[in-house]
Amino acid sequence: MHHFKSVALAAAFALAATPIRASAPEEAVAAAKDWRASNGAEIVAEFASLLAAQNVAGGGMEVERNVKTIVHAYAQRGFQMKRFEAEDASPLIYGAKDYPGAVRTIAIYAHYDGQPVNEADWTNPPFKPTLYTRAIDDGGEIIPLPGHGEAIDDDWRLYARSAGDDKAPIIALIAALDALEAKGMTPSVNIRLVFDGEEEAGSPNLGKYLTDNEALFSDIDLWLFCDGPKHQSGRSQLVFGARGVTDMGITVYGPNRGLHSGHYGNWAPGPGWRLVNLLASMKDDEGRVLIRDFYKGTKPVTAADRRAIAAMPPVDDALRAEFGLAETEMKDALLAERILLPALNLKGLKSAEVGEKARNVIPPTATASIGVRLAAGNDPDVMLDRIENHIKREGYFIVRDEPDQAVRLAHPLIAKVTRHGGYPAVRSRLDDPAIAPLTAALKKAAPDLILTPTLGGSLPLFLFTEVSDAPIVILPIANFDDNQHAADENIRLGDFFGGVEAYAAALVMDE
Amino acid sequence: MHHFKSVALAAAFALAATPIRASAPEEAVAAAKDWRASNGAEIVAEFASLLAAQNVAGGGMEVERNVKTIVHAYAQRGFQMKRFEAEDASPLIYGAKDYPGAVRTIAIYAHYDGQPVNEADWTNPPFKPTLYTRAIDDGGEIIPLPGHGEAIDDDWRLYARSAGDDKAPIIALIAALDALEAKGMTPSVNIRLVFDGEEEAGSPNLGKYLTDNEALFSDIDLWLFCDGPKHQSGRSQLVFGARGVTDMGITVYGPNRGLHSGHYGNWAPGPGWRLVNLLASMKDDEGRVLIRDFYKGTKPVTAADRRAIAAMPPVDDALRAEFGLAETEMKDALLAERILLPALNLKGLKSAEVGEKARNVIPPTATASIGVRLAAGNDPDVMLDRIENHIKREGYFIVRDEPDQAVRLAHPLIAKVTRHGGYPAVRSRLDDPAIAPLTAALKKAAPDLILTPTLGGSLPLFLFTEVSDAPIVILPIANFDDNQHAADENIRLGDFFGGVEAYAAALVMDE
Repeated sequence: MHHFKSVALAAAFALAATPIRASAPEEAVAAAKDWRASNGAEIVAEFASLLAAQNVAGGGMEVERNVKTIVHAYAQRGFQMKRFEAEDASPLIYGAKDYPGAVRTIAIYAHYDGQPVNEADWTNPPFKPTLYTRAIDDGGEIIPLPGHGEAIDDDWRLYARSAGDDKAPIIALIAALDALEAKGMTPSVNIRLVFDGEEEAGSPNLGKYLTDNEALFSDIDLWLFCDGPKHQSGRSQLVFGARGVTDMGITVYGPNRGLHSGHYGNWAPGPGWRLVNLLASMKDDEGRVLIRDFYKGTKPVTAADRRAIAAMPPVDDALRAEFGLAETEMKDALLAERILLPALNLKGLKSAEVGEKARNVIPPTATASIGVRLAAGNDPDVMLDRIENHIKREGYFIVRDEPDQAVRLAHPLIAKVTRHGGYPAVRSRLDDPAIAPLTAALKKAAPDLILTPTLGGSLPLFLFTEVSDAPIVILPIANFDDNQHAADENIRLGDFFGGVEAYAAALVMDE
Repeated sequence: MHHFKSVALAAAFALAATPIRASAPEEAVAAAKDWRASNGAEIVAEFASLLAAQNVAGGGMEVERNVKTIVHAYAQRGFQMKRFEAEDASPLIYGAKDYPGAVRTIAIYAHYDGQPVNEADWTNPPFKPTLYTRAIDDGGEIIPLPGHGEAIDDDWRLYARSAGDDKAPIIALIAALDALEAKGMTPSVNIRLVFDGEEEAGSPNLGKYLTDNEALFSDIDLWLFCDGPKHQSGRSQLVFGARGVTDMGITVYGPNRGLHSGHYGNWAPGPGWRLVNLLASMKDDEGRVLIRDFYKGTKPVTAADRRAIAAMPPVDDALRAEFGLAETEMKDALLAERILLPALNLKGLKSAEVGEKARNVIPPTATASIGVRLAAGNDPDVMLDRIENHIKREGYFIVRDEPDQAVRLAHPLIAKVTRHGGYPAVRSRLDDPAIAPLTAALKKAAPDLILTPTLGGSLPLFLFTEVSDAPIVILPIANFDDNQHAADENIRLGDFFGGVEAYAAALVMDE
């Protein structure tokens, strides 16, 4: 019970644990359903309004529009709201509301910023929320936003940047609070809000914001991370960790300027050939990373992890069909197992031009963008060291800036390596007793709740483990096929309102 | 003597071979030098005027401006000018002028079109000819075009698209004709002009133009190709062939849409990894092509070729220093030897984005643009077959269009292969007696003339061997560092006027 800050609180918890609100989570789920029936159109309209505010981190006035909308909405519901500010940064939105009789405090994290958009790839403008009868690639058709009292179909999808990742939780939590209020129900936990504005930019100021305001987080008993997609089976999941992330740019060199491929082809080394040979040495055709020690130190899979994975619904075949993949890495190894290992991703390749734009030139450079998804136990810097050492073992001289003529003439193989920061993975224990009441409450909203050892995606959970010893769990509400980070991001409204039910249940969890 | 069309002509040649114009080439060189001294500024101005006309094939009105300028200039010098036209094509400019007493006919080929430009890479606009005191990257400074009578420095460089490749010969030939005229000298050969407007686009209509007008080419005794750069030593060269060219696009596939690299990284196969593994199987680190039979059928190197290569000045070390290359392919194998073999070039690579634009997505595709430079004996189609067969042997299913879902699910490895046409290499015999008088004349302009078995670059010489059995040689006049096909293309004026001298000597070659 190390999560409670004093013996007195622990005693209070012990008393409160008598089932005075035994049916509260069920009642909360019913309240959420009633609220959807009577006020669904208003909730969707409020959601669409927030989605219309452009939210790429560093976006200036438009970002401010997001912040003001969110602060206003929660202040109206009695939250004490604060903004944590840093120079040239999107603010972090903090909120607090205590409830009579609550002895535990739950902090809810979400982020209001979104991934950059390449508008040309979108069917509709990314900041013009557009409602469809179902997924666009499933033949969905555009419909107007629902009118007051109109029933909301589970399969409707609202398309906009951040519909799934990650404005949905911010609106769903408001709806959950309103649903409880409408039935005269009071949350059983004090609530703290932590809404990040820079998650997609790697949350560069979140650590400072938390550390500078450490006192505000000293009484937190459980961190609830509201981000990421639900399980690919469509079922709800409670996730006990997330991968970390880091990345690296690699540029290799040919001649110091583009050379005519006829006059010098077969003589001047092509940087593209060098790059493909270097990269091919890093990962084999089956997906096994060949870099020395790449998997070393990764947190082993526990018996509890194995039980949880065995209990998860099989999704791999369906996902392969969905994504048009005849085969996945390591001869169709299980996705849930694969994400417990670090991943080496090739995010991008570039050398001169391809297709119609290709010219008959031996290009001067070829560049790769490498992403590393970290599993628990992997240090970002150590992982980048391992990759860099591999490049050295392949015969490359490493530089940090463009090589000058002297460096070029001294080294046949030169790689400019650009290292980025990133952060480590975090995983809570699947058998942590402090998480049990939440799990029980969530099962009232979703009886088939899946317990997942880790999310594949990355979240800056490590920042919270630095200011608090409370456990962290992740409760995603977005449909897994929400196209997050890509074009045509969307949320399925059935999943969104399922999230409202889950939050309502969680807010009245047993103590 | 198979180049002469009748016994009568052969007899005339035998008579004419008595040295009635023994000193003509020397006199012509002197005439060209005098003409430069008195009219150099006017020649440069005419050159700059032609360079100002945009000349990317298919460029419409601007292309027409090139054609009109050239036709007008040669018509003024007494040439009968024709335009060969095809739909949606730049015209081919044909010209003819016979001279009293001439018994041989020489056809001069050049092209007035240029490579596409990426204007952002240029120091000055590519179609605003700009004169520099020397090369820009050698500290050259901009100077105005010279005034009448002003001496022209050999090191001055005129920057513009096509300055070297390939408008220089068109203007230099005019200057040579004018220089002879000024001294009352008459060419010893009838002249035919063949100025291509689509060389950089692969001369799609040249074959048809030649075949449709075959009668015009029946009396040609020697084809003189005026294109390409001089030898890298700076010395003049007469080149006995050129490589052919073809190319291929290869796209490989991952998931049917971009997937979040956290949720699916380590599970969904990345197309970038597939592409680098496929390409790495094609060429090793030393530059050896690993594709089965890639070198098979390539015309062997003759004793004459070997003697010529041995007599060529060593340039490899200087070129490596110039291009910032510590090492070249096959452990610094000789450039002159390497270009007698087919080359596999990686012209471009592309998958998603790199650098700041890179996103944490597993991209759906990765694409390579492959260029093949062909040596004598290589058939373009057969070479593409060999590459395609290699891709198949690596386990890929080949498609010509984007694969649909059924194809994706049926084949783990799919490559979309786009084949382009191209054309074969041609090489004349180094010991052909019909070429000897030209060689002798050119040595008057450049005593250190190099005889080169082949140019590395590609020229559509095969089209001429289809309508004529006359031998073909290439006489480049542009400095080797003219940045042809790249940004900041330029010509060194010393080389340009050396070209005027060479043409003047050639026009009065002994019969």
